Amino acid sequence: MDEILLSEKERIDDLEYRGLKLIQNEKGFKFGVDAVLLSDFAKKLKKGSVVVDIGSGTGIISILLCEKTNLKKIYGIEVQEEVARLCEKNIKLNHLENKFEVLNINVKDVESKFKKGEIDVVVTNPPYKKEKTGLTSDDRVNLISRHEIECNLEDVIEKSSFLLKDLGQFYMVHRAERLVDIMCLLRKYRLEPKVVRFVHSKPGEKPNLILVKAVKYAKEYLKIEDPLYIYNPDGKDYTDEIYNIYEKKKEK
Amino acid sequence: MDEILLSEKERIDDLEYRGLKLIQNEKGFKFGVDAVLLSDFAKKLKKGSVVVDIGSGTGIISILLCEKTNLKKIYGIEVQEEVARLCEKNIKLNHLENKFEVLNINVKDVESKFKKGEIDVVVTNPPYKKEKTGLTSDDRVNLISRHEIECNLEDVIEKSSFLLKDLGQFYMVHRAERLVDIMCLLRKYRLEPKVVRFVHSKPGEKPNLILVKAVKYAKEYLKIEDPLYIYNPDGKDYTDEIYNIYEKKKEK
Repeated sequence: MDEILLSEKERIDDLEYRGLKLIQNEKGFKFGVDAVLLSDFAKKLKKGSVVVDIGSGTGIISILLCEKTNLKKIYGIEVQEEVARLCEKNIKLNHLENKFEVLNINVKDVESKFKKGEIDVVVTNPPYKKEKTGLTSDDRVNLISRHEIECNLEDVIEKSSFLLKDLGQFYMVHRAERLVDIMCLLRKYRLEPKVVRFVHSKPGEKPNLILVKAVKYAKEYLKIEDPLYIYNPDGKDYTDEIYNIYEKKKEK
Repeated sequence: MDEILLSEKERIDDLEYRGLKLIQNEKGFKFGVDAVLLSDFAKKLKKGSVVVDIGSGTGIISILLCEKTNLKKIYGIEVQEEVARLCEKNIKLNHLENKFEVLNINVKDVESKFKKGEIDVVVTNPPYKKEKTGLTSDDRVNLISRHEIECNLEDVIEKSSFLLKDLGQFYMVHRAERLVDIMCLLRKYRLEPKVVRFVHSKPGEKPNLILVKAVKYAKEYLKIEDPLYIYNPDGKDYTDEIYNIYEKKKEK
C-alpha cells in the first residue's frame, strides 16, 4: 500500500466492496447507506461521461462511481477544507488520481471553475436539513455536512442546472420529507424529474429517502419506480436488493 | 323508498356502506376505490365545515362525507349536465337535500357562485389524464370525467385556492405519476402540501395513487404517511385497512 499519512482521529475503513477503502474522521460525518444507494441509482450513466459530485465529502460516491461505471472524469466539490484534504487522501488510497479530482470550493462558486453546460452528469447527496438558527455544535464539520449552512438545496439545483448540458442528467438522494422543495426547485431550474424511487426501511413504513433522476430540459413525464426496502418485513435481515447493491453474499 | 325515475342505462348500486345507495350510468364513469379512499382521507374535517367537492360526478365522495363527518354543507361542482342530474337523484335517494347541493357549472366559473375565501374545505378527485389531442370517443361523458378537457389540474388548484379561507384544507386523490405537477401547482397557489400518502396495489409495487392534504398559507413542512396497500402481499385478499375503510367484515 502507498504511504498515506493519517492524522489523529482518522481511520481507514475497508468498504468491503471491490477492494475499495475510505479514510474517514472518527468524529466527522461518516458515509451512510444513502451514498451507496445513490451510486447504485446513478450507475447507468453513459461511458465517457464527465461528472460533478456536489458535496463530495470524503469521496465515497465518486469512488464507487469510478468503480461501477466507465466515466471519464469526476470532479468532487467540497467546501470544507479538511474534508477535501481527506478526500484527496482517499483518491490516492484508491489510485484514482487520473479519474477523480476534488475541488475545495463552495458550490455557489462553480462558475469560477466550469463553463455553463459542460458537464454530462451531476450526482449529489447534499446536506439534508434546513439551517436552524441558534443551533450550535462544537463539531462544525459535521454540522456543515448535515445542515444547509454553506449552501442550500436551491443553490445545489441552480448550480447543477448551470453545469449540465442539454439533456444532462442529475441524480440526487435526499430526505423524502423534502419532496415538495425538491420537485418545485428542480422544475424551477428546468431539471425535469423523470424517475423517482422512494426508499423505505421496510414494507409498510413511510419512505425515509428519495432517489431522484432529473434531466435538463426534458419533457414532463415522471416514472415512479417500485419502492426500495432496506430490511425485510421482519426488520432484521437486509433485503436481497441491498445484498446485491453491496455485492455481498447472504449469510445462510 | 322514494320514487326516483331512472333513465334507461341507469342503475342503483347499493354502496353496502351504512345503507347508502348510488345511481350510476352503466356506460358512464363509475366510482372507484380512489373516491372511497379520498373520503376516508378527508374524514377528519372539522364539525360544521362548509365544503366544496370539485368534479363531484354522481356524488360518491360528497355522499360518503355527509355520512362520515359532521359537515354543515357540501357543494358539488359538476360541469356535465347529465352527470349533475344523476347527482341530484342521488342526493334525493340518500335524503341529503339539506346538506348536499350540486351546481352544474365549470370549476373555472366558481367565482359566479362563491366569494373568495368563504370555504373551509375542498375535496377533489379530478380528471387524471392530460388532454390528448386527436383522442376521440363516442362516450364523451366518460372522456370528460377522465381527461383534462373541461378543466385541468391547474384550474382545479387555482380555484380551490380562491375558494378556501386562510388555513382552509384541500384534499385530493390523483395519479402518483402526476407528483411533480401536483407539488409545484399547490405551492404556486399557496396551498402548501402538509400530508402525502401513497397508495400501492400491494407491498413492493410502485404507488399508483397519491392522497394529498394541503393547507392554504401554511408553513412549509410535509409529513409522508405510511403507505396504503389495497391488497396483501399475496395479491389476493384486501388488507385489513381496506376492510376497515369499507367497514366490512373479513370473510373467514
